[in-house]
Amino acid sequence: MRTIEWRDGEVVTIDQTRLPEEEVWIRLRTCNDVASAIKDMKVRGAPLIGAAAAYGLALTAYHSNAKDKNSLLSELDEAAERLRSTRPTAVNLFWAIERILEKARRATGEVEDLRRTVIEEAERIAEEDVESNRRIGENGADLIEDGDVILTHCNAGSLATVEYGTALAVVRAAHLEGKRISVIADETRPKLQGARLTAYELIRDGIPVTLITDSMVGYVMSKGMVDKVIVGADRIVQDAVINKIGTYTVAVLAHEHNILRGCSNINI
Amino acid sequence: MRTIEWRDGEVVTIDQTRLPEEEVWIRLRTCNDVASAIKDMKVRGAPLIGAAAAYGLALTAYHSNAKDKNSLLSELDEAAERLRSTRPTAVNLFWAIERILEKARRATGEVEDLRRTVIEEAERIAEEDVESNRRIGENGADLIEDGDVILTHCNAGSLATVEYGTALAVVRAAHLEGKRISVIADETRPKLQGARLTAYELIRDGIPVTLITDSMVGYVMSKGMVDKVIVGADRIVQDAVINKIGTYTVAVLAHEHNILRGCSNINI
Repeated sequence: MRTIEWRDGEVVTIDQTRLPEEEVWIRLRTCNDVASAIKDMKVRGAPLIGAAAAYGLALTAYHSNAKDKNSLLSELDEAAERLRSTRPTAVNLFWAIERILEKARRATGEVEDLRRTVIEEAERIAEEDVESNRRIGENGADLIEDGDVILTHCNAGSLATVEYGTALAVVRAAHLEGKRISVIADETRPKLQGARLTAYELIRDGIPVTLITDSMVGYVMSKGMVDKVIVGADRIVQDAVINKIGTYTVAVLAHEHNILRGCSNINI
Repeated sequence: MRTIEWRDGEVVTIDQTRLPEEEVWIRLRTCNDVASAIKDMKVRGAPLIGAAAAYGLALTAYHSNAKDKNSLLSELDEAAERLRSTRPTAVNLFWAIERILEKARRATGEVEDLRRTVIEEAERIAEEDVESNRRIGENGADLIEDGDVILTHCNAGSLATVEYGTALAVVRAAHLEGKRISVIADETRPKLQGARLTAYELIRDGIPVTLITDSMVGYVMSKGMVDKVIVGADRIVQDAVINKIGTYTVAVLAHEHNILRGCSNINI
C-alpha cells in the first residue's frame, strides 16, 4: 500500500484520521494543503511527514509563477517556514525541508531547472524511503522465527511511511518469507494509532493481529505470549531512542521478561 | 461520600456508568435491581459489590411475603443464585452472600427474626467496610510524606467501597493530616475507571490530581515524578495479588524505579 504519491502537480494521500472506518484518499494541491494535513494528523508518522513536506515544496515549485530563480527560492523559503510550524518536534520534517532547500540553492540553470530540481528531489526522498524500508524488512526478518508473536507499539507501518513501513516492514518481510507469525498491537492511547492504523493495515495484508490495551502489555509478556518486540523510532541519538509515549514502558517490560527488542528507523 | 445506603426497604447508590458527566442516584427496590446494577457496572469495585449483594438479600428478606422461615430461606437461596451469576470472578460477592446465608441458616425464632437478622447482617457488612477503610487510611497515611506524589491505577476510592475507599483512603487520610500531596491517576483502559472515577472523586475532595494515559506511567516514573504507588486489590492470596488489568505493568515499572509500592485490601 502506497501511502503518498505525486501525480502531476497533486499529492494524493490517505486521510489517516478517518481510518479504520473509511478509506478516504485526499488530493493536496498546495503546500498549504500539505501543511494543514500534517497539522491535523491526516498525515502522520515520522518518515511520511518528511516525504509529505518534500512534496509540499514540490507543489510550491510546480505551481509557482516566478519568473526568476530568486523569486522561486524566496517562495520556497516562505513555504518551508509554514511547513516547519506544523509539527516543530518532527525531525524528519526539518531534515526533508533542509535537504530540498539545500539542493534548490545549489541548482544551476534557469528557473525551470530549479523547478525540476525541487520536484525530482522530493520524488527521490520518497523513493529512498521505500527502498530503506524494504531493506529494513529484509534485514529485520532474519531476527524473526517461524511461529513468533511480535508485539508492536503505535504505528510504524505503511501508513507511517511512503510504503511498506519500518517496524512492520520486518513483520511483512517475515510473513512473505512464509514464516507463520502473528502480531500483538497495543492500542496506543491517546490517539489510538495501534488500534486504528496498525491493526487496520495488518488485517488488510492478511497478517494475524490481536489488539490489546496498553496496560495489558505486562500481562501478555508475563504469560509468555510475546517472543519479540519491534517498534519504530521518531529519532535515535547516541544515548536515547525517541518515540511515541509508552515506548519506554514497553521497553522496561520487555527487559523484565528477557524479550528480544528491536528498533527500526530509516535515517540512522 | 457514602456510595451505597439502606433506606427502609430501598438501596440508594450512584450510577457509576454516568460519572463523571452526571451524578445520578438510583433506587434499587428488589434483589433483581441489585443484580442488574452489578451486571451493568452501575455498581463496581470489589468491596462495594460485596455490600451491594448483601443489601440485595436484605431487599429479598424485607419485601418477602413468606409465612415461615423455610420459605424465606429458599427465597434467599434463589436470590443468592441470581446475584452470583452477575460477576462470577468477584470474590467479595461470594463472600458477602455466604456470610448472609450462613447467618440466616442459624437464625433462631420466627420468620420476622430471620428477616431482621438478614437486614442487620447486611448493615453490619457495610459498616465494617467503612470502618476497615478508615483504619486502612490511618495506617497507610504513615507511609506518606509531605510533598509526595502518589500514582494509582483504576479506582479504589469511595466509589469502589461503601465509603472512603481503600487505596484512596490512604490518600484522603494523608490529605486530612495536612500533608501536601498530589495524585497521578492513570486512565485505566478499557473502562476508564481512573479517568472517570478516581479523577472525579479526588477533584470532588479538593485533592490535586493529574490524569495520564496508562502508557505514560513509565515515563513519569523515569522522570522522578512519582514517589509512591498505591493500588487496591480484588484479592490477595499467598503468592499473588489479583487486581485490574495493568496493575502488573505498574508494579514492574515501580520496581524498576525503586518506588515504594503499597497495596490495600479490606478482607485480608
